[in-house]
Amino acid sequence: MSDVREVIARKRDGHALTEDEIRGLVLAYARGEVADEVAAAFLMAAFIRGLDTDETVALTRAMVDSGTTLPLEGVSRPKVDKHSTGGVADSVTLVFAPLAASLGLGVAKLSGRGLGHTGGTLDKLESIPGFRTELSGEEIERQVQDVGCAIAAQTKELVPADGKLYALRDATATVASLPLIAASVMCKKLAVGTDLILLDVKAGSGAFMKTPEDARQLAETCVGLAGRWGRACRAAVTDMSQPLGDSVGNALDIAEAIEVLRGERVGRLRDLVIEFAVAAQEVLLGSSAGDKRAGAERAISSGDALETFRRMVEAQGGDPRVVDDPSAILPSARVTIPIVSRSEGTLGAVDAEAIGQAAVELGAGRRRKEEAVDPAVGIVLRPKIGDTVGPDEEIGVVHARDRRAADRAVARVLDALALTDEPVEAPPLVYGWHDAG
Amino acid sequence: MSDVREVIARKRDGHALTEDEIRGLVLAYARGEVADEVAAAFLMAAFIRGLDTDETVALTRAMVDSGTTLPLEGVSRPKVDKHSTGGVADSVTLVFAPLAASLGLGVAKLSGRGLGHTGGTLDKLESIPGFRTELSGEEIERQVQDVGCAIAAQTKELVPADGKLYALRDATATVASLPLIAASVMCKKLAVGTDLILLDVKAGSGAFMKTPEDARQLAETCVGLAGRWGRACRAAVTDMSQPLGDSVGNALDIAEAIEVLRGERVGRLRDLVIEFAVAAQEVLLGSSAGDKRAGAERAISSGDALETFRRMVEAQGGDPRVVDDPSAILPSARVTIPIVSRSEGTLGAVDAEAIGQAAVELGAGRRRKEEAVDPAVGIVLRPKIGDTVGPDEEIGVVHARDRRAADRAVARVLDALALTDEPVEAPPLVYGWHDAG
Repeated sequence: MSDVREVIARKRDGHALTEDEIRGLVLAYARGEVADEVAAAFLMAAFIRGLDTDETVALTRAMVDSGTTLPLEGVSRPKVDKHSTGGVADSVTLVFAPLAASLGLGVAKLSGRGLGHTGGTLDKLESIPGFRTELSGEEIERQVQDVGCAIAAQTKELVPADGKLYALRDATATVASLPLIAASVMCKKLAVGTDLILLDVKAGSGAFMKTPEDARQLAETCVGLAGRWGRACRAAVTDMSQPLGDSVGNALDIAEAIEVLRGERVGRLRDLVIEFAVAAQEVLLGSSAGDKRAGAERAISSGDALETFRRMVEAQGGDPRVVDDPSAILPSARVTIPIVSRSEGTLGAVDAEAIGQAAVELGAGRRRKEEAVDPAVGIVLRPKIGDTVGPDEEIGVVHARDRRAADRAVARVLDALALTDEPVEAPPLVYGWHDAG
Repeated sequence: MSDVREVIARKRDGHALTEDEIRGLVLAYARGEVADEVAAAFLMAAFIRGLDTDETVALTRAMVDSGTTLPLEGVSRPKVDKHSTGGVADSVTLVFAPLAASLGLGVAKLSGRGLGHTGGTLDKLESIPGFRTELSGEEIERQVQDVGCAIAAQTKELVPADGKLYALRDATATVASLPLIAASVMCKKLAVGTDLILLDVKAGSGAFMKTPEDARQLAETCVGLAGRWGRACRAAVTDMSQPLGDSVGNALDIAEAIEVLRGERVGRLRDLVIEFAVAAQEVLLGSSAGDKRAGAERAISSGDALETFRRMVEAQGGDPRVVDDPSAILPSARVTIPIVSRSEGTLGAVDAEAIGQAAVELGAGRRRKEEAVDPAVGIVLRPKIGDTVGPDEEIGVVHARDRRAADRAVARVLDALALTDEPVEAPPLVYGWHDAG
């Protein structure tokens, strides 16, 4: 106990801690031998004083070593994991996983649930009747080998220290620390035995990092951690100054992802999925794969990616007919009302977080971890920054449980849009790539 | 809950908090509505970022308001409280209280138990058979009016937030913060309705503050807090580069205090008590009291102070014969062995904390709050800095439970003394006074 206090006092006074000091503290906390208040004091000291690269590596390693890992040794495909730091209308994983699988890669994606204004991939998939996200390590391994992709809940045995520390950070105003965020993101990825880690670090009004520069720093810290581990990692800083796709919800996101997989929908969501598919092929398939972009587009137009999605849904117990007729299979909301533009102009800015929050208020997300989500409700909003909007134009739809909630959501969405008379250039989709390994 | 996190985040980012923010957090914590880990994060942020004067006042006020107060309105004497920040062989309170009472003042002293290397006044008094330290507010008030002094345990109802926060600071490496220390010292004093607060801020190897400059800063912060409260306060920074008296123990301290009260013992302990008695008379009695130093010395030589001590012991259930024959009434240790100087020279420096720790190891103090103390054991060490010591001179005595513990304590005491061939000047007794009110 006195040792732990000495470690905390050293960080408090601005000194760098040794690997053994950080490891001892984190593993003892995971075992319940260090009290929450003691760990909280450490987190606040680390937040204010910072952690250098060695300390961040030690923290990440301790979190990995606090539990079991998922080596995926039985998978012969080149394996890729993909992670987003969280955004609004961000269904990249839902499309990327079957697309990459249809290109011969293996995608093992352990995912979390949505919290706050950002959606969660598990919540979205569970809107497909029967879909199971609780898979064992063996099930994941077998499915990645056979189908090519699996999207499952992170098990309690994987990086338990991370979950415990994250809950503590959430309670103690110590979330927004670059090294603490990077360690938390990367420990989950490093605990899974993949050949490439792809990171989508979002920047903008709907993201945790509000500026591309903040996002770049997080991307660099994460790829640096992977590099210290000897693991290949590519991180893209991508735009989240507006919702990526059009749909913010759970069933609505699934429906949109299926449209993209069917090749019926173009736009920024599809474009970003293709970017990640190209990046994955470049690292894992090299010159043998020919034109990576054309290959990815062909996997969509041929129906291969959609077919892989169907097989994944089937393998995880979901109703595969969702692929053929989403609206017949997915739950639908009792009330739908159109979002009608209040005036005309060019869309100059979007408060994407406010739109995410409006969806949360409809019931599509959670304010607290223990809340349930309503799979049917949500928002569809079509215009992107730079698009012109006419007066009284229908620009989207709110799906709600009742009329009152719907009206409130419409108002919140319209409040989140800034129209202008000036021409506006669309923001870039990808600000830049950062590599390690 | 989210409000508390916002408050913590503001302190984390270096902003000053409002009185309402600090008050809300501290009172909610005292009521159990804010979790330990949340308060720990606040304490670490406050430790690193600091608290300004307004924030420290707000913290102190919240701690006072977390419980009941002891107004002492039924006491007609001018009332004084005296507090030491903790030292070794520091029995000033035991002599000061009856001395000041015999001069017509009322001394209401709520005290704590010893922890670590510094002794506790309650532990010392409880070595007198029958002595009760758990007094009600009414008992304290009546005794201060009738006898002139009472030394009792702080009740659970007084400043409960302080005890709870102190325990949390102890667990989370957030003790050594000037504003947190000052608020903790002063809330206990401000909760008691006295006319003057005297503070003895110790500086040196046996004190919490190792340098006079650090002690001066704490003294200034404390008198500043009292001033903001409109309360009279005088703080002395005094020497703790060596044990103040000769005795480090519980019964041994009582015996030494009685010797001082009988006028049989001169030296730094008596000198410091006189300094505090002079300071108290200056503020509370003014010119009416004549020569304050002579008056204090007369109260000892006349036996008035000793008689007041006897009445206090009797009023609190202790055996009053302790005053006449301490060795017959106080518990004595099974083993006593002399401390014999290893060489000759002038005493140049003393590690007073090590001597306090040696006494703790003998059983005279506690390492943890829940431990019991042995009233009989301890150390008597006579030489002060600047004194010459002959070869093989008996310079003190160890009182122990067994021979092995005694030998270990003798070695530790001798290790704590630095003899030199050069002449050494004795350190000042009082570095300076700081006033408010």
